Amino acid sequence: MTTGVRITGATRLYAIVGDPIAQAKSPEVFSARFAAAGIDAVMVPVHVPAARFDSIVPALMEIANLDGVLATVPFKARMTAFATRVGATVECIGALNALRREADGSWTGEMFDGAGFVRAAKRKQQRVLSRRVALFGAGGAGSAIACALAEAGVRSIHVIDVDASRAQALVARLSRAFASCAFEVASTPPHDVDMVVNASPVGMRREDGLPGPIGELTAGTLVGDVVIVDEPTALIRDATRCGCHFVDGRDMHAGQVDAIVDFFAQSARPHA
Amino acid sequence: MTTGVRITGATRLYAIVGDPIAQAKSPEVFSARFAAAGIDAVMVPVHVPAARFDSIVPALMEIANLDGVLATVPFKARMTAFATRVGATVECIGALNALRREADGSWTGEMFDGAGFVRAAKRKQQRVLSRRVALFGAGGAGSAIACALAEAGVRSIHVIDVDASRAQALVARLSRAFASCAFEVASTPPHDVDMVVNASPVGMRREDGLPGPIGELTAGTLVGDVVIVDEPTALIRDATRCGCHFVDGRDMHAGQVDAIVDFFAQSARPHA
Repeated sequence: MTTGVRITGATRLYAIVGDPIAQAKSPEVFSARFAAAGIDAVMVPVHVPAARFDSIVPALMEIANLDGVLATVPFKARMTAFATRVGATVECIGALNALRREADGSWTGEMFDGAGFVRAAKRKQQRVLSRRVALFGAGGAGSAIACALAEAGVRSIHVIDVDASRAQALVARLSRAFASCAFEVASTPPHDVDMVVNASPVGMRREDGLPGPIGELTAGTLVGDVVIVDEPTALIRDATRCGCHFVDGRDMHAGQVDAIVDFFAQSARPHA
Repeated sequence: MTTGVRITGATRLYAIVGDPIAQAKSPEVFSARFAAAGIDAVMVPVHVPAARFDSIVPALMEIANLDGVLATVPFKARMTAFATRVGATVECIGALNALRREADGSWTGEMFDGAGFVRAAKRKQQRVLSRRVALFGAGGAGSAIACALAEAGVRSIHVIDVDASRAQALVARLSRAFASCAFEVASTPPHDVDMVVNASPVGMRREDGLPGPIGELTAGTLVGDVVIVDEPTALIRDATRCGCHFVDGRDMHAGQVDAIVDFFAQSARPHA
């Protein structure tokens, strides 16, 4: 993973902005991906103190050899102010995590927190189309995954959150944005669910159990879990025991890197 | 020279700002030096369109993990506006090429275009103290070298430039700044000169001859030439033929890198 990179005067820049930033994996992961693809570009960590966000970020975007920006905590919502245009997911959830500069100098923004999940499922040859989904967690990750699943053509999403009003607000936003999918607030998954996704933080602590009542898993159920930990979560352990295919936090992260690398490459501003 | 570097979320940033920037050697040279010294830092090229200088540079300096800035053409003079304090050379010539962030967030600026020459001479065990100098060229490089030589204790500097008024203006500034050294405008070097330095562009073209009437070189004359070309310049060829020690453009550049690496390391803000 740690391919040595080379920086010259001609190297193009991508920046990941966050506060703090030292924990970010993207500089190493993306710089290695660019190097492996023969692209003369690096991803640099940019620590933007939150109080300085509005002065630093627009200036950063004026740097002529900077072709893209990733946003991490706490800037995913504020960064939408600097996009010239955004995709449907960004419109729906009001947050983005990637911006690319186009040939005309404008900026296109997109949110890949959910697209990484869909990409990872496809990479594992798992069908997403027409699934009936139970989604635990209506926060940032859950919102992004719900949008990505709706765009990918799932039939229904039942949103389960300990905060029912948050689940209700997400369902309302999703229903306005995606007419082709049915959204409902739920407290337990309906019996015909064939996809269960945890987008809540449950599972981050070793003593955590399941994110809620997941119902009966069958071999045909596709299971997803956003949590990235060293040992499998209770949900992934259940999925394994029941013979389900699954997408875990690391799969999602890898899928997201793939999706963002493609997004950057689709810019009309080719790497010289 | 091209040690592979590694960029993580914790990597500290240095930026070189210029317009254009693709030709700059510093990103590769400094990043390799940091890596070789075990310092988790990189030097990134930052293309600042000249018209955007005043909005980009102060914002860049607010990035919390950016510890230093190099300035190249055309920003060496404008960059002085962003230094909290500067050294005597910067005061004298009104330009700088390096800024470092101190522990209290203030910025110290210095000019190393001339210090690299002195550093290179010392690295070759050549005495600079008490020399009588003929200096060809009163532009940016000549100004910086004159200051560095005066600070290093040369006895006199005769400044020779095709534009006599430019030479006169430099001599006036130098005389105010350095009381311990004699400065004069000249059209030819006096006979007792024991150091000849070319800081003019003469020698960049293969058909160029000497920068002017250099007088008689003896084995005791120290010769310097700022020009960086693949084949030795006429001045360096003469120096070699006469058995003189010399400092050429590549020596100066290496000396400057050493001096700036030390300058960055002297910050009261240690690399974590």
